[in-house]
Amino acid sequence: MLDNLSFVLKKVDTVTFEQRPIPDIGSHEVLVEVKKTGICGSDVHYLVHGRIGDYVLEAGKDMVLGHESSGVIAKVGSLVSHLKPGDRVSIEPGATCRTCVACKEGRYELCPNIRFAATPPSDGTLGRYYAVPSHLAYPLPPELSLEDGAMIEPLSVAVHAVAKLGNLRTSQSIAIFGCGPVGLLCMAVAKAFGASRVIAVDIVPHRLEFAKSYAATDSFMPPLLEQGETNVAFSKRAAALMKAELGIAEQGARGIDLVVDASGAETSVQTGVRIVKSGGTYVQVGMGQPDVTIDMSTVVCKQLTVKGSFRYGAGDYPLAISLVAQGKVDLKPLVSHRFSFQDALLAFETTRSGKGSDGKGVIKTMISGPDMKVSEL
Amino acid sequence: MLDNLSFVLKKVDTVTFEQRPIPDIGSHEVLVEVKKTGICGSDVHYLVHGRIGDYVLEAGKDMVLGHESSGVIAKVGSLVSHLKPGDRVSIEPGATCRTCVACKEGRYELCPNIRFAATPPSDGTLGRYYAVPSHLAYPLPPELSLEDGAMIEPLSVAVHAVAKLGNLRTSQSIAIFGCGPVGLLCMAVAKAFGASRVIAVDIVPHRLEFAKSYAATDSFMPPLLEQGETNVAFSKRAAALMKAELGIAEQGARGIDLVVDASGAETSVQTGVRIVKSGGTYVQVGMGQPDVTIDMSTVVCKQLTVKGSFRYGAGDYPLAISLVAQGKVDLKPLVSHRFSFQDALLAFETTRSGKGSDGKGVIKTMISGPDMKVSEL
Amino acid sequence: MLDNLSFVLKKVDTVTFEQRPIPDIGSHEVLVEVKKTGICGSDVHYLVHGRIGDYVLEAGKDMVLGHESSGVIAKVGSLVSHLKPGDRVSIEPGATCRTCVACKEGRYELCPNIRFAATPPSDGTLGRYYAVPSHLAYPLPPELSLEDGAMIEPLSVAVHAVAKLGNLRTSQSIAIFGCGPVGLLCMAVAKAFGASRVIAVDIVPHRLEFAKSYAATDSFMPPLLEQGETNVAFSKRAAALMKAELGIAEQGARGIDLVVDASGAETSVQTGVRIVKSGGTYVQVGMGQPDVTIDMSTVVCKQLTVKGSFRYGAGDYPLAISLVAQGKVDLKPLVSHRFSFQDALLAFETTRSGKGSDGKGVIKTMISGPDMKVSEL
Amino acid sequence: MLDNLSFVLKKVDTVTFEQRPIPDIGSHEVLVEVKKTGICGSDVHYLVHGRIGDYVLEAGKDMVLGHESSGVIAKVGSLVSHLKPGDRVSIEPGATCRTCVACKEGRYELCPNIRFAATPPSDGTLGRYYAVPSHLAYPLPPELSLEDGAMIEPLSVAVHAVAKLGNLRTSQSIAIFGCGPVGLLCMAVAKAFGASRVIAVDIVPHRLEFAKSYAATDSFMPPLLEQGETNVAFSKRAAALMKAELGIAEQGARGIDLVVDASGAETSVQTGVRIVKSGGTYVQVGMGQPDVTIDMSTVVCKQLTVKGSFRYGAGDYPLAISLVAQGKVDLKPLVSHRFSFQDALLAFETTRSGKGSDGKGVIKTMISGPDMKVSEL
Repeated sequence: MLDNLSFVLKKVDTVTFEQRPIPDIGSHEVLVEVKKTGICGSDVHYLVHGRIGDYVLEAGKDMVLGHESSGVIAKVGSLVSHLKPGDRVSIEPGATCRTCVACKEGRYELCPNIRFAATPPSDGTLGRYYAVPSHLAYPLPPELSLEDGAMIEPLSVAVHAVAKLGNLRTSQSIAIFGCGPVGLLCMAVAKAFGASRVIAVDIVPHRLEFAKSYAATDSFMPPLLEQGETNVAFSKRAAALMKAELGIAEQGARGIDLVVDASGAETSVQTGVRIVKSGGTYVQVGMGQPDVTIDMSTVVCKQLTVKGSFRYGAGDYPLAISLVAQGKVDLKPLVSHRFSFQDALLAFETTRSGKGSDGKGVIKTMISGPDMKVSEL
Repeated sequence: MLDNLSFVLKKVDTVTFEQRPIPDIGSHEVLVEVKKTGICGSDVHYLVHGRIGDYVLEAGKDMVLGHESSGVIAKVGSLVSHLKPGDRVSIEPGATCRTCVACKEGRYELCPNIRFAATPPSDGTLGRYYAVPSHLAYPLPPELSLEDGAMIEPLSVAVHAVAKLGNLRTSQSIAIFGCGPVGLLCMAVAKAFGASRVIAVDIVPHRLEFAKSYAATDSFMPPLLEQGETNVAFSKRAAALMKAELGIAEQGARGIDLVVDASGAETSVQTGVRIVKSGGTYVQVGMGQPDVTIDMSTVVCKQLTVKGSFRYGAGDYPLAISLVAQGKVDLKPLVSHRFSFQDALLAFETTRSGKGSDGKGVIKTMISGPDMKVSEL
Repeated sequence: MLDNLSFVLKKVDTVTFEQRPIPDIGSHEVLVEVKKTGICGSDVHYLVHGRIGDYVLEAGKDMVLGHESSGVIAKVGSLVSHLKPGDRVSIEPGATCRTCVACKEGRYELCPNIRFAATPPSDGTLGRYYAVPSHLAYPLPPELSLEDGAMIEPLSVAVHAVAKLGNLRTSQSIAIFGCGPVGLLCMAVAKAFGASRVIAVDIVPHRLEFAKSYAATDSFMPPLLEQGETNVAFSKRAAALMKAELGIAEQGARGIDLVVDASGAETSVQTGVRIVKSGGTYVQVGMGQPDVTIDMSTVVCKQLTVKGSFRYGAGDYPLAISLVAQGKVDLKPLVSHRFSFQDALLAFETTRSGKGSDGKGVIKTMISGPDMKVSEL
Repeated sequence: MLDNLSFVLKKVDTVTFEQRPIPDIGSHEVLVEVKKTGICGSDVHYLVHGRIGDYVLEAGKDMVLGHESSGVIAKVGSLVSHLKPGDRVSIEPGATCRTCVACKEGRYELCPNIRFAATPPSDGTLGRYYAVPSHLAYPLPPELSLEDGAMIEPLSVAVHAVAKLGNLRTSQSIAIFGCGPVGLLCMAVAKAFGASRVIAVDIVPHRLEFAKSYAATDSFMPPLLEQGETNVAFSKRAAALMKAELGIAEQGARGIDLVVDASGAETSVQTGVRIVKSGGTYVQVGMGQPDVTIDMSTVVCKQLTVKGSFRYGAGDYPLAISLVAQGKVDLKPLVSHRFSFQDALLAFETTRSGKGSDGKGVIKTMISGPDMKVSEL
């Protein structure tokens, strides 16, 4: 049946609303009526560039956008017993094969057969309906709104980077470069995990202020790049300033146990490697610049561990939901702008410009489903 | 008493033989009569450049060279009960404080108070006598010669990189870039640990041949850099060739679990990151080039773990000794050239040139102690 | 179609041959023509007792026996592309749900929804055909015979206990209590992993002799229980004797890093906990006695880790196959008695009695499939 | 100089005040003027029984009691630079050799050469002065009182059991058997680490009430042992009741990730093993009953990890201090009774009886140093 209004990327910079068929579901799948969808930088990136890294929107193959969504179960497959129509759920948007080596070993985020919403050639969630394997539709506890349910996606990115790969332990210290949504959520996870110190780093003062009001204990604004200064020289200077200003040591209790870069900027990577403590861990979350110059002698002498973090894996969604349900993470302050489905394009433009028509800086833009009012949660 | 003939670096490119006082030993120390000392690239580097990274030989402060040594106990401190004069020992040349956070937590290789032989300002082992804390003088089982005892130092570097930080497990696969002594010893450790596949990578054919005769199961010689080709472009090409030639996959049983770079070359780092499997580990052993351009989007998408490995830590010396005693590692083929103490300078020059007067390529150069003939083990 | 001759347990001590329907297969399944099946103590236990622990053969519900099998692919499901008819495979006999928390997190051995061959109410593999999910049919490399393929099942039990849960590292030492098939295979895995010392413990001299000829470096035969001696008192005495006889220390290089009990006897557990080194690991493999008295003050003072190991999980089958293919484990010496399908009951009786009609002690009994001769591999 | 008034155990049930010489200190030691000492069950045990397990007070060898202490630095050794007279410190009462395998590998709690305060033959801290290696005297941040400083010792026991060996992660669930000081502190650590659920188990109602007011989210009082009921049968019944009452599952989000037994009672061990989730961890903290009957088939089928926890090791004291300084653990509610030094015997009797002269139940009894008033912190 053709009653599945969707927001479709036709080609670079060209989107449209289209009716699509309501997806059939298999015996282990559920059909979700999508209610709230957050817009992510990667969605905008596809709209503007038609690609991210090796993922390319091919000519003539359009794609429904959106992957941070929650909704209400509309229909369940014949073998699904733990969900029923009407249940509110958060959608994990990557369906993996469940049988490759990576899936079997509990690292399904590495599954080569993954189909991920709004990553070519797979359609995304910005429609009336979305079909998912039932084990990827997580029931929302009563403490979570549908907006919270949509925000579980980026929160899981932060859980994966900080808690799983970064292995942050209570009372350790962390520095996070970049105060966009993922950086802020990394701070929220760090706070929830009982970090003794959460240092926010950004070049925009009001973003640092928000970070401190939200989850950071300290903040640092790097200096300006001087004329003719290389990134390497700059990062040495920035790291020295940061250490002096915040009393950061190479070792022991004043050392930084974990650095997470959510900015992707080369100078952040370079500075981060210099300020993490001897024997510490550096996590790069999300795709930034491809070729980055790193001081390998620092990595070697301090015997650092550098990890790449991408999306999320086993246990990340449940932990993210649990942190919100327990009140350890508050997602509400991060939704800065809300749009109805028919204003989806405006939502994308607002996210892209970074500033709303209200003059306020954008953190997270949320689009309601076709059948839902902006104000409904 | 002034009867401790030593080989002293006075300043860049200037060495001399000097009598030094025989060191006094504390109650927990032992005095070792040094019998065999291997020459390492870092010893030569101090001779030629007077520095390595931030470690600088200060003007007017000379330094005894050498740090890969074995010997015979000459005297023991008043509280030492597990060693006695005459015992043959391998010397671990880094004395740590034992009480800082890193030492207490079992990561003494990160001790900021370490005094390391032949790293300014600490004297090295190329003398008649060397004093060490008794717990750093490891008794040699009968299976090990004194030359083996000296070789335990670089073998421990390999144990630390491959077994401890690389966490190689039996039946996993490994690729090692660089077929110098450390690279070869990494291959030997990988073989001893039951690696299913040990791939040697180098640009010199006879080094690859030796690697295969010694411990590698496969070898790969990267192509030549083409005119105008950037290192980044080259490494993409080299990685693609290497994958095709050796049947390397991104995932599963044909993937490479662990890459160790013992070359320090930027193109090795870049190629290594590209050929390691999704979710795999890359270990950089020893200080190479400081600023290296890495493809961070590969690190992120494949969710790699990149680690710096420097020297060795708890358990590495005992494991190295045990592997040789059990016959799992054979060190003998690696000692290519031997010199008496009075020919120490010639030993350095031979190491530096990479070729002996016999025309043979140098792997490891070994200098006998002042009181020992070259032929004695 | 009713052409699937099967060996069926009707009730305690009553088995029969029956024609069963050839199973239909789903799109992701394969149909295997079973060629070789090893008989395990648990198969015999069901025959004799009708139950193991909480797993009970219900009245009126018969069950095909057998779960250690290899075979040849007869048919593949519509979506199976990596296998084709004629492929020789080893069958992993536990089909899990792939979507519960345990499955997602890579610990599918804990899946509460598992259907395991010849564990009530699921039928086993002792028929002409057996249907499995395609990812549980592992292709046999040319180095492995079909008998080897059947033996992969118990070898995986040993891999799980020694390598995964026991985390044995090259050059560590291990003691294994019980020289039945699982104990012997644990020794084989320990040897393949490069254990420095593999101590076999059993009360039957010829079993110890076989263990030493197969994979153990040392053996120990506990003393006899004295009249009136409690198990606790006995185990203190046995542990003291074992330490003295084999030069076992509480700490360091002469300590035992890992103890695996494959006997299930209370005195083995008690002795094992006493001889493992301070900070060491004890693994109980397979179900033995339910209620066992343990010296918890020893567990506490030595800060031991005690683990229960049951069946196998992610990566265990592939590792087991790889160890055999590389020649690190030799399975052939363990198959002591071979039977044709029509002699299946005799095979069970031989296993039960522990001695063949040839007077030789039974290690592993192997039954050929209905269409296969005993001598074919 | 003989001015070190001490509280000395002469033999079972016989204590006295004696002047002892003020200890000399080595170059790396400090002399602490002891200000506050908590009394532990083990101190009382030595008073009453003269032994704990294999640790026996030998005839004719008296021993100063006490090991949970804080104080003020009176004097520092010649090589101590990070402490000075007047500094307030918490004393870690176990001096290890720093050079054995266990010490080097960061598991100094396993050092066979440890000298532990008030464990025969080493004197304890209940005197005016106590000498310790300087790295075991931890400066107290301003947020901690001297009583807090004394309480760091039992808090470190809890940190070791729950955080280090139990590896509790934020949002996991825990059940703790026994609401004495160590059990309560385990709950405090679990709460500080962000446990989603902290279940207190005890047989005394007012202890459960206190636990809930302090750090537990749930409580459970086991039923009474019925006449003729074995411990094994009882524990099955208790576990079933506990699961039903608290909604505990074998798997997933309603499962118990970690059970810590701080009671030492056999029925607690047995019940604990039954209620922990499949794949979960059970930690026994402190020495309880030596011989305990455990259901090994449960350990095997659920593939549990059972660990013994004793005292504390690397990083535990710093983490304990940090948790209190950050306000994540509040130690004040646990000090129920305070005594001056001259009333030390009364303090022991109060601890032994479990009830103060005020009629209040004893949690922790605190004795002031000879030169300090009860009210001073």
